[in-house]
Amino acid sequence: MRAVVLNCTLKGSPEKSNTQLLADEVVKALRERNVDTHTIRVVDHSVLPGVETDLGEGDDWPGIHEELVNSEILVIATPTWVGRPSSVAQRVIERMDAMLSEQDDEGRPVAYNRVAGVVVTGNEDGAHHVISEVSGALGDIGYTVPGQAWTYWNMGPGPGPSFTDTDHGHEWSVSTGRTMAANLYAVASALAKNPIPPA
Amino acid sequence: MRAVVLNCTLKGSPEKSNTQLLADEVVKALRERNVDTHTIRVVDHSVLPGVETDLGEGDDWPGIHEELVNSEILVIATPTWVGRPSSVAQRVIERMDAMLSEQDDEGRPVAYNRVAGVVVTGNEDGAHHVISEVSGALGDIGYTVPGQAWTYWNMGPGPGPSFTDTDHGHEWSVSTGRTMAANLYAVASALAKNPIPPA
Amino acid sequence: MRAVVLNCTLKGSPEKSNTQLLADEVVKALRERNVDTHTIRVVDHSVLPGVETDLGEGDDWPGIHEELVNSEILVIATPTWVGRPSSVAQRVIERMDAMLSEQDDEGRPVAYNRVAGVVVTGNEDGAHHVISEVSGALGDIGYTVPGQAWTYWNMGPGPGPSFTDTDHGHEWSVSTGRTMAANLYAVASALAKNPIPPA
Amino acid sequence: MRAVVLNCTLKGSPEKSNTQLLADEVVKALRERNVDTHTIRVVDHSVLPGVETDLGEGDDWPGIHEELVNSEILVIATPTWVGRPSSVAQRVIERMDAMLSEQDDEGRPVAYNRVAGVVVTGNEDGAHHVISEVSGALGDIGYTVPGQAWTYWNMGPGPGPSFTDTDHGHEWSVSTGRTMAANLYAVASALAKNPIPPA
Repeated sequence: MRAVVLNCTLKGSPEKSNTQLLADEVVKALRERNVDTHTIRVVDHSVLPGVETDLGEGDDWPGIHEELVNSEILVIATPTWVGRPSSVAQRVIERMDAMLSEQDDEGRPVAYNRVAGVVVTGNEDGAHHVISEVSGALGDIGYTVPGQAWTYWNMGPGPGPSFTDTDHGHEWSVSTGRTMAANLYAVASALAKNPIPPA
Repeated sequence: MRAVVLNCTLKGSPEKSNTQLLADEVVKALRERNVDTHTIRVVDHSVLPGVETDLGEGDDWPGIHEELVNSEILVIATPTWVGRPSSVAQRVIERMDAMLSEQDDEGRPVAYNRVAGVVVTGNEDGAHHVISEVSGALGDIGYTVPGQAWTYWNMGPGPGPSFTDTDHGHEWSVSTGRTMAANLYAVASALAKNPIPPA
Repeated sequence: MRAVVLNCTLKGSPEKSNTQLLADEVVKALRERNVDTHTIRVVDHSVLPGVETDLGEGDDWPGIHEELVNSEILVIATPTWVGRPSSVAQRVIERMDAMLSEQDDEGRPVAYNRVAGVVVTGNEDGAHHVISEVSGALGDIGYTVPGQAWTYWNMGPGPGPSFTDTDHGHEWSVSTGRTMAANLYAVASALAKNPIPPA
Repeated sequence: MRAVVLNCTLKGSPEKSNTQLLADEVVKALRERNVDTHTIRVVDHSVLPGVETDLGEGDDWPGIHEELVNSEILVIATPTWVGRPSSVAQRVIERMDAMLSEQDDEGRPVAYNRVAGVVVTGNEDGAHHVISEVSGALGDIGYTVPGQAWTYWNMGPGPGPSFTDTDHGHEWSVSTGRTMAANLYAVASALAKNPIPPA
């Protein structure tokens, strides 16, 4: 089984990404289940604005798209900015919009029988909303979202520390991330054995 | 397999519920798959404000809660009011909050291995948001949300007709509702055969 | 100048409302500006489901509606439940929907030239979303929402203490609430002197 | 008085932007009130990812930021993609995040005493949510959002035509856009005469 994590931080490599650090806990728990897991830091690539899979010269999306269709599990990891998913996460969702009209060999939307979850970090409140926004979009596109397939970290109220500035709440966030990995794996496995059939 | 539809219209019986009419298309498609499907019009019952399963005398929620734990499939059907899920839908979600700490025989959150979808009608724009809000809440509680497990009807821009005032778009809404039923059934079946295991 | 605070807690009197305690800080700051401020704990009243101003016998909404049209400032105070505004807050918004077709003496929507703000408490993340949801609905209805006309309190990540269980962050929440009161008062005053004219 | 419209379409010039066409109706109504109105098609500029006002070489945001601080009125015009504001709109909001710590000559957040509104087009449902998301973010940053300071166009249910493919609903969208312009102008004027004072 394969998983891809799209880290939607605004910060390019090699800057430290708090979102990556929390996502890494999910990656670790997926790998314990022998899931071949690959992380892409989207902002390091040129993902052009638009809603088609291949926007031609200078567009790095086709390579990311290929990872998506090769993976049964997708994790979107995003910071919270002004209470909402990052512009990089929304860019990813826009490019995934084209998957609505892409089909697998049996004529199903290509996202069917794949599962998705969300990891959120922020230095302020907003995670539950970000999770609903991203999960809702992925459900539109055809991904199945297992119960409790998310984790997050922040510390309110108001602007606060970043994930690595404190240990507050790490235990809860990591434990919730491990549950997320278990649920992604279990539902992906169930769908692998008994997939949604063609219409 | 059992399904329960919670119709969260603001209108008590016997007033006509547009939301019910669209939900009935999903019910029909579930019954074609031999799913024993039961509809509850929540506003006809006394569901007290709070976040526990049983608020005592005068509280009809315990009966609805029992339907939930007896059903592998949940459909929340709600109108859009001022762009958001109805107060009745939010009341249902609040009462379901207690399910977070209820467990099945093997110690899993009671909503695990159950699936949920959303039906929305409105006389104005708002359906995708309502779907994300309700799906996101149900995912928090532990329900798995299959890809494309929703349908909706409205006709914009601005205030417009109700579902039964026009035939515009009915074909799309019904067809999308049939896909929803197929996906709910398929994912519920997959989880019945290969459930999320205890932690 | 008059203000009305609608406390949308799920808990009836005399139970302690954390939301009220934070809202009281805003009330205090409004009164320092000689704003005649009145608080209504909505759940103590019978507010029937529907979208008209007067649903007849047993409906306490008409009295609350009268407070709204007598007040230049509205504060909606609500807890966060499963990341969303309470069912009581949504009920209030649904009943206010009728104000869209009510006009003042000069033919303007009755909410014009009134201002609104939002107070949120929770034992988990969700406040910014609740603020956007409630503010967005009130803007639809015609209220002007001043910049930074909100405050909130919670402490993440995950389920945490209630407002009164800790002093963490109180200073920020109170200070932000005082800014909120100042901004509500300033914008209401500006509109009193130079109202939005009839179309 | 000055207004700036940020068109957050994904399509670069000279491609036709439906969002621009609806925004132009608001521009026209602002100009009738002698508001000096300038439109920027954001995607034609290089707006780097980040949350500071000047990200250095290759960053076109500082010029847009200057327009913002020179304008009493801001209009964000955005398409709906997968039910949400465009990635370009979210990028704008992220860059505006820095304005939270920028102050005017009297020590107020720089967005105070400015007003904002939202124009949305889509080929599917989502506008009210987009309006709440963008307005909520701008309110966080300090903009005042007048009542009914938005317009939108779409035609549901499901994927449908673009704004220029049909005349359906144009009258409502244009009329609502004219109301939006009137309300932005009136509230900006009121705040110009009686600004929110320094704390």
